[in-house]
Amino acid sequence: MIKIGIVGGTGYTGVELLRLLARHPQARVEVITSRSEEGVRVADMYPNLRGHYRDLAFSVPDVQALGACDVVFFATPHGVAHSMAAELLATGTRIIDLSADFRLQDAEEWARWYGQPHGAPQLLDQAVYGLPEVNREAIRNARLIAVPGCYPTATQLGLLPLLEQGLADPSRIIADCKSGVSGAGRGASVGSLLCEASESMKAYAVAGHRHLPEIRQGLQRAAGQAVGLTFVPHLTPMIRGIHATLYATVADHSVDLQTLFEARYADEPFVDVLPAGSHPETRSVKGANLCRIAVHRPQGGDLVVVLSVIDNLVKGASGQAVQCMNIALGLEETAGLDFPALMP
Amino acid sequence: MIKIGIVGGTGYTGVELLRLLARHPQARVEVITSRSEEGVRVADMYPNLRGHYRDLAFSVPDVQALGACDVVFFATPHGVAHSMAAELLATGTRIIDLSADFRLQDAEEWARWYGQPHGAPQLLDQAVYGLPEVNREAIRNARLIAVPGCYPTATQLGLLPLLEQGLADPSRIIADCKSGVSGAGRGASVGSLLCEASESMKAYAVAGHRHLPEIRQGLQRAAGQAVGLTFVPHLTPMIRGIHATLYATVADHSVDLQTLFEARYADEPFVDVLPAGSHPETRSVKGANLCRIAVHRPQGGDLVVVLSVIDNLVKGASGQAVQCMNIALGLEETAGLDFPALMP
Amino acid sequence: MIKIGIVGGTGYTGVELLRLLARHPQARVEVITSRSEEGVRVADMYPNLRGHYRDLAFSVPDVQALGACDVVFFATPHGVAHSMAAELLATGTRIIDLSADFRLQDAEEWARWYGQPHGAPQLLDQAVYGLPEVNREAIRNARLIAVPGCYPTATQLGLLPLLEQGLADPSRIIADCKSGVSGAGRGASVGSLLCEASESMKAYAVAGHRHLPEIRQGLQRAAGQAVGLTFVPHLTPMIRGIHATLYATVADHSVDLQTLFEARYADEPFVDVLPAGSHPETRSVKGANLCRIAVHRPQGGDLVVVLSVIDNLVKGASGQAVQCMNIALGLEETAGLDFPALMP
Amino acid sequence: MIKIGIVGGTGYTGVELLRLLARHPQARVEVITSRSEEGVRVADMYPNLRGHYRDLAFSVPDVQALGACDVVFFATPHGVAHSMAAELLATGTRIIDLSADFRLQDAEEWARWYGQPHGAPQLLDQAVYGLPEVNREAIRNARLIAVPGCYPTATQLGLLPLLEQGLADPSRIIADCKSGVSGAGRGASVGSLLCEASESMKAYAVAGHRHLPEIRQGLQRAAGQAVGLTFVPHLTPMIRGIHATLYATVADHSVDLQTLFEARYADEPFVDVLPAGSHPETRSVKGANLCRIAVHRPQGGDLVVVLSVIDNLVKGASGQAVQCMNIALGLEETAGLDFPALMP
Repeated sequence: MIKIGIVGGTGYTGVELLRLLARHPQARVEVITSRSEEGVRVADMYPNLRGHYRDLAFSVPDVQALGACDVVFFATPHGVAHSMAAELLATGTRIIDLSADFRLQDAEEWARWYGQPHGAPQLLDQAVYGLPEVNREAIRNARLIAVPGCYPTATQLGLLPLLEQGLADPSRIIADCKSGVSGAGRGASVGSLLCEASESMKAYAVAGHRHLPEIRQGLQRAAGQAVGLTFVPHLTPMIRGIHATLYATVADHSVDLQTLFEARYADEPFVDVLPAGSHPETRSVKGANLCRIAVHRPQGGDLVVVLSVIDNLVKGASGQAVQCMNIALGLEETAGLDFPALMP
Repeated sequence: MIKIGIVGGTGYTGVELLRLLARHPQARVEVITSRSEEGVRVADMYPNLRGHYRDLAFSVPDVQALGACDVVFFATPHGVAHSMAAELLATGTRIIDLSADFRLQDAEEWARWYGQPHGAPQLLDQAVYGLPEVNREAIRNARLIAVPGCYPTATQLGLLPLLEQGLADPSRIIADCKSGVSGAGRGASVGSLLCEASESMKAYAVAGHRHLPEIRQGLQRAAGQAVGLTFVPHLTPMIRGIHATLYATVADHSVDLQTLFEARYADEPFVDVLPAGSHPETRSVKGANLCRIAVHRPQGGDLVVVLSVIDNLVKGASGQAVQCMNIALGLEETAGLDFPALMP
Repeated sequence: MIKIGIVGGTGYTGVELLRLLARHPQARVEVITSRSEEGVRVADMYPNLRGHYRDLAFSVPDVQALGACDVVFFATPHGVAHSMAAELLATGTRIIDLSADFRLQDAEEWARWYGQPHGAPQLLDQAVYGLPEVNREAIRNARLIAVPGCYPTATQLGLLPLLEQGLADPSRIIADCKSGVSGAGRGASVGSLLCEASESMKAYAVAGHRHLPEIRQGLQRAAGQAVGLTFVPHLTPMIRGIHATLYATVADHSVDLQTLFEARYADEPFVDVLPAGSHPETRSVKGANLCRIAVHRPQGGDLVVVLSVIDNLVKGASGQAVQCMNIALGLEETAGLDFPALMP
Repeated sequence: MIKIGIVGGTGYTGVELLRLLARHPQARVEVITSRSEEGVRVADMYPNLRGHYRDLAFSVPDVQALGACDVVFFATPHGVAHSMAAELLATGTRIIDLSADFRLQDAEEWARWYGQPHGAPQLLDQAVYGLPEVNREAIRNARLIAVPGCYPTATQLGLLPLLEQGLADPSRIIADCKSGVSGAGRGASVGSLLCEASESMKAYAVAGHRHLPEIRQGLQRAAGQAVGLTFVPHLTPMIRGIHATLYATVADHSVDLQTLFEARYADEPFVDVLPAGSHPETRSVKGANLCRIAVHRPQGGDLVVVLSVIDNLVKGASGQAVQCMNIALGLEETAGLDFPALMP
């Protein structure tokens, strides 16, 4: 069995890792850390896990205990992985970081968006962006994997086929994205209260959201040139799910977009291109490690609309992290992840 | 007291008319029709109205009874107002139609989108589009008023300041709109079940929605030229509310957009331009006859993002209909409509 | 115009007072206090109030300014009214306290349930319990009114007809109550997050909830003897509403319960007894100052089931407070409160 | 691999069977029937199943095809299993019926509650009530298993320890139960629309619900005597979940109820007794085949309160059906069912 450590397991991506790993056939969580919950059993904090992790309890982070694991996941706010990564990598373990710490290749851009200096710029060279549909080979050999954010996953998977083929005008890409409230985390904030966030909808951070540079970096890599991106995130009254509605100008009408998308993802176990004319629902991926995509050209115009949905906690975070682990350790890529979404 | 008739009052726009008119100081509902619910008291069908309409019951539509009213509202599916309007207008009453029957000026376009011939093309000349912020003077003298759709209201109010001034490139307008489920009406359909529509989000009708030609017609009127519009509606897990996220290219950076929007709506009692940097929430207009708007230019680029929210059943339907009635009958425009939204 | 002061207006009962008073024909809010939000305009904190309270801003509590008001509402956590009431009453103003400070007649019982000494036991003699359906005359002359809690209102109104007539066995009363999340207030707590409280249901405080002694006190007053009460509150995934399901043993089958309930509340403007066989929905009172009740005797047995619903923020708090104000000041009891619920 | 047939797989219990069986290690769905959806692939109807049942399509019910299966599940409205069971059993297959057809032992009582004659009274002798915690041995040899209803499962599991030991007064049992909307099925009814059922709560069928005789039968079996039961179901604004709040009089205070409950369910893989003082949340079993229970004696009185939660579609229907299948076929009882709930 593969030994797993989790740093900072009290948030939603932490409990989701525990849920997914509970049924992973080849992995076992050995260590989970939390300073604030030291000594609390995970099943006491998360009653859905009762019966699954009988004795596992939160402990104070300890490099030796974590270093004895085959893989260490970081399910922490940004900045934590920066401070522990170098020391941990020296023990020989692998790091799969669900936070934003190693997603941007440019340390200065990171510092600008996160309002603090990058804490481990010397590790950026070896950090691999953990989007398997783009980086599978690099993930295989990686010791430090930066799992993409939720918005970036849904957006990149929806736009890659167009940008890789040079079909979309890169100067005017729009990503109008809608997220469930779990994307805001488990912190006690007024804005995430049921009485504030349910029965309502709003955009936020229109002036600039931290996922913007990450999305742009990924799109530019695919396009091979600069990309002009407008990204507008919205808060939606549901727990899980991201719905990305993507707008790109594709002047060339000779390409069969449906065929293009199906071909691009034909061998991908976790990307599902729906039949032409479809409208994916976020609930069709609830709890599952999947991105479902549909591509439209409304009224036969130049503007192509791509609809891309994921569960932000699974393909947008913990599921993708497990997928990266499977690849990195040479396991079956779908191990522990091959089950249907919960619907209704 | 002004005498009011309502044709087809069993749906959500019907009960919303009843809710609003219950506190209107100068109006009284005399007749409400429904073939299927004949004889049922409205307070038995809608328990929120118990105590307000003690004896009012649904009756079979009757031109004489309706013609005796000062105003007749149609809260019906499309096609019904077509079949009754001419006869009713001949009695001298006014018609305020909440359905789509008289919204499009072009009978052929109507027939194309609604899949049936227009039933009263001879009345189109006198039909006035009931968006007070554009057509107040025409509404004052109108005998046949076509109340705008919910998406068209939120979208037009958000884009008018840009298009009227010729600031936005009319060839590439995008309206990414999110609606609560009440927009789908009170009909028993699987797609609107709580178990299907809650905890999920999806786009629909990307290939073409019936509100598209209505929005385009309104934008073209404002722009004075053809408009290229992409309209993507989404179903959102909440009862009420529309959030329109509007994208327009404004190359001219010399205009202060905040000032432009504030000036455009300075005298409008039901349009509220939020301070710069704001993100309106749909719940801030829940139950109220208001459109709240914020305008952004993210990262100082050419693309302007306008956020526009309404309650689809109020400013997007029944409230706007009452507003039109107030104007048409020379009442105070805000009569019966001047109360805050329900929050939380 | 009656001058109104509000102490502690930043929570849900505070904003609900503002919503209701915005349309009160004879009252005007002059002062609203909050230490933490000093200087913030209420319309900036609560966007639904934009356009209604243009200049009203939160100020630091000041006895002189509050004392110049005709009525001062306390929308504060328990303990605050204790500390300010005596001084304020000395100015000659009236106090309507929405908190728990003066609800229990027994200062020692208060201290036991709230874990701190009662702060103003000398005022208990003049405190009037603000349930108009029981205490209307006393409220008329009261200078210090304790507005009932939300659970106590729904429960007492549902059981009074049985207990006042000595019909129910007082030794075994059960109140199984379900509340929307707004009952937990606007504080940032993990348990009230959308991601924690939606799509779920749970009981809480089964061992003992602070509303238990208040309910028991009210039932005992009605019964004229000791009452054995089991009270189980539940958290329900909705914003507003309380549904009380009440169980009482009524051995006497000769009484027509429907007639009894209708007669008891025949003259009450804000209690609505539904027809026999009905099941009231909480949404039928959403936003309205109403209690709707239905009474059942399932399978003709000895156990009577009463269903009683209110909006916890209106008839369960701020609406009832305004009703008390209307009575105390000799206004029309329904002033500012006579409008339908928002449905759907 | 065990061959499985499903009759009537288009409803929520049908899709839930498919979700659960998709990951069952020893079973494979061979046939699924639906007259209305003949020829439609299940993955086209239920997008969450895309990738799991590539070729499985609905077919018209056919005894030969179904008879070739090892087990046939009925996920149908009542009456259907009646009409097909005898013929199917004659083929030698097993039947696991999720409908109400064989739950009541008394054909006349069935006829009274369902308003039609019992269609297969001659099979009642061999029908086994599929509650493994009571009937495990009988299920092992059963050819016709009647899976309990959702309310009956939550209620019986919560009360069995008290009744089996003769601790509770059997003459006054109250079950106040709250259900998510999926309990009402996938039929298009106005009452189950999001706009009708969300943001609201109500009791229903207080005069008598079809699960009442089933619960009473089960409780009487446990008590060995007649039981006086009051059962009040409620509709709650969530998709999945049942919360049963159970009231029983236990005069004997010498018994340690916590120990009693823990001992009763010590060997049950799918019943979880929470620590003393707990309040189970329905979300802690969302998607999982579990019943979580807590027992309270508020204020040390005679009335015991048991809180019992299940997912109505899993332990209350399809999960319990798979559990029965596992037992009946001699498989590991937890096969395909041993995974955590989805939380948040």
